[in-house]
Amino acid sequence: MILMKDEIQANLEDSEGWELVDETWIKKQFILRTFPKAIQFVTDIADLAELRQHHPNITIDHKQVTIQLSTLDEGGLTQKDFESAHAYDRTFQKYD
Amino acid sequence: MILMKDEIQANLEDSEGWELVDETWIKKQFILRTFPKAIQFVTDIADLAELRQHHPNITIDHKQVTIQLSTLDEGGLTQKDFESAHAYDRTFQKYD
Repeated sequence: MILMKDEIQANLEDSEGWELVDETWIKKQFILRTFPKAIQFVTDIADLAELRQHHPNITIDHKQVTIQLSTLDEGGLTQKDFESAHAYDRTFQKYD
Repeated sequence: MILMKDEIQANLEDSEGWELVDETWIKKQFILRTFPKAIQFVTDIADLAELRQHHPNITIDHKQVTIQLSTLDEGGLTQKDFESAHAYDRTFQKYD
């Protein structure tokens, strides 16, 4: 179910570093130590995404990985996006 | 060594599906069968990139993988970009 503006705002406050894009996406940039670490992080994220059948857009620019989430088949942001965001944040902590 | 415009053009003619972007990048979109295949393709590309110490920008949008190449420390396109492009094309053939 699509989140209302105030629900999105409340979720964003619990999601450090995630920002709203075009009202229908959330986005965060992760910086890894090396390019191979960036790729390993992406494969970890991809495993989670495949398990949840909820796939983010991913951009890799050397050590920088940018993740964007939206629930395309509902046309906006849902709780699934924030749940994935938090799962990715927990995954990133392993790389710190 | 930075390639001249006519050298870029000659190389592009030998590089099916690669297009010039902003005169300093070449770009190609690859479509894989599934999201896990897209991720596997990206890790293969990343291994080649790490071996060559020449890293592309990579965007993953579900089954679509877009690769951009440029030689940043020389400020434009070099033979290295086209060599990487051809290596990635050969890798992609394994997924077809």
